[in-house]
Amino acid sequence: MINRLCIIGTGLIGGSLALALKKSAYCKHIVATGRNEDNLKKALHLGVIDSYELDYASAVSDADVVFLAVPLGAMRDVFEKIKPHLADTTIVTDAGSAKVSVIDAAKQVLGKLNKFIPGHPIAGIEKSGVEAAFDTLFQDRRVILTPVAENMAEDIEFIKSMWKSAGAEVDMMEAVHHDLILAGTSHLPHILAFALVDCLNNLDDVDEIFRFAAGGFRDFTRIASSDPVMWRDICIENSDAILSMMQQYQNEMQKLKDAIKTSDSDKLLEIFTRAKQARDLFSM
Amino acid sequence: MINRLCIIGTGLIGGSLALALKKSAYCKHIVATGRNEDNLKKALHLGVIDSYELDYASAVSDADVVFLAVPLGAMRDVFEKIKPHLADTTIVTDAGSAKVSVIDAAKQVLGKLNKFIPGHPIAGIEKSGVEAAFDTLFQDRRVILTPVAENMAEDIEFIKSMWKSAGAEVDMMEAVHHDLILAGTSHLPHILAFALVDCLNNLDDVDEIFRFAAGGFRDFTRIASSDPVMWRDICIENSDAILSMMQQYQNEMQKLKDAIKTSDSDKLLEIFTRAKQARDLFSM
Repeated sequence: MINRLCIIGTGLIGGSLALALKKSAYCKHIVATGRNEDNLKKALHLGVIDSYELDYASAVSDADVVFLAVPLGAMRDVFEKIKPHLADTTIVTDAGSAKVSVIDAAKQVLGKLNKFIPGHPIAGIEKSGVEAAFDTLFQDRRVILTPVAENMAEDIEFIKSMWKSAGAEVDMMEAVHHDLILAGTSHLPHILAFALVDCLNNLDDVDEIFRFAAGGFRDFTRIASSDPVMWRDICIENSDAILSMMQQYQNEMQKLKDAIKTSDSDKLLEIFTRAKQARDLFSM
Repeated sequence: MINRLCIIGTGLIGGSLALALKKSAYCKHIVATGRNEDNLKKALHLGVIDSYELDYASAVSDADVVFLAVPLGAMRDVFEKIKPHLADTTIVTDAGSAKVSVIDAAKQVLGKLNKFIPGHPIAGIEKSGVEAAFDTLFQDRRVILTPVAENMAEDIEFIKSMWKSAGAEVDMMEAVHHDLILAGTSHLPHILAFALVDCLNNLDDVDEIFRFAAGGFRDFTRIASSDPVMWRDICIENSDAILSMMQQYQNEMQKLKDAIKTSDSDKLLEIFTRAKQARDLFSM
């Protein structure tokens, strides 16, 4: 049970966690703060939060848990804003899509990491904003916690229970490993989809191109509707892992290009068959 | 109205056209032929076709329309098999995903193109085989015809009416232009999806990677479940347009990679914002 949860960043993720914890009655009071008062008002009006505060002191000082659900690029600034008001017992956790950079920022700003439990709910959809929040966003989705050496087992368990009560399945992982896995399964696909839409958009026949695009294209590029600010931040904050995955992808494309150039039927069939098998296995 | 339609290749596309034309009562008798008798038996048993023939002479000689729904790589062979049995009045059409190569094959084998109306229904799904066929596959989908100079207007109209009675919207286009447009909207996305799944599949952490993949990844890679033989053939038969699109895509990726390498926030935000706008417009 959480007495008072402070959410910083009441968008899709922050709002959905608030709704889920209200539904499961895991949290007595949910207070929010953030830069945008209109957004806080909206969250209150929609019944997503119980109250909001405009100053960080009032929002943070009595909280058992402070949940940072802001874009990666805003994490450091928020750590700086909350630091003076954090009680010794307050657990801080986050929802950042890259973990190494958030841990670095926390270390630099907070000094000690013992009460910061880094986390990442893998539950994005293309929509954003508190209007898009819903209480089952995390149902049967995975949340990855990437605890640091200084964390206490009981604090980790506390955050784990919070996510479980929101319906999620919780996994533990090293931060570096998390960033590499996510670069492959999430960051790279998003970059590829943005790149495809932008590439086609630059062609002369752009209207015709989009007119003749079918269902496959629609599915493939759906993630290119995602929030540009969030994805800019992810690219900046997880650049090493992303660049490494992009290089591997470029090598794979070159392999395919060479096979097409030389009409290497066997090679093409081999790659497509292997990919189809892997994808079909994943669907099950 | 078609008295006798001969379908060569009773898979998803051939089977679905048969079902649609039966439903709209646009065709009196649908006969099929092909290399695989089991498949023909299945199509008959499922009520997709009215009869089948194992020799091309019986299948083709009395047909008003012969519809080739075989992989691109099999087109030339089928043209050779049907040529001796085609009546002067029989219209031949096809469903090949690339048009220039099919027209070339038809020209080389049939000699004259006047009765061949090249076509391409843009209605693929990841499933294949006659079991997957359904009578509304072409409903509100686009079919592109790429007539050649030798075609007669009335024959083009005849094939157009056939597709309309199957529920499709019919567009006309130059074959070269078709191949370029489709390379961008369909062939490139499929290659990118195959490449991503194969790329991830080659990593050491492959099990973990697929375990932590979320909904975006699922959508993005759905088309990597498509038929490997069909996609090998498309890569071989539309190689020029595909290689040109792949080159443009590689340039786009390099642009993004450079922006990530240099932490160029503005550039990343610009590209992602432009892509999101284009994709959102397309969704409407």
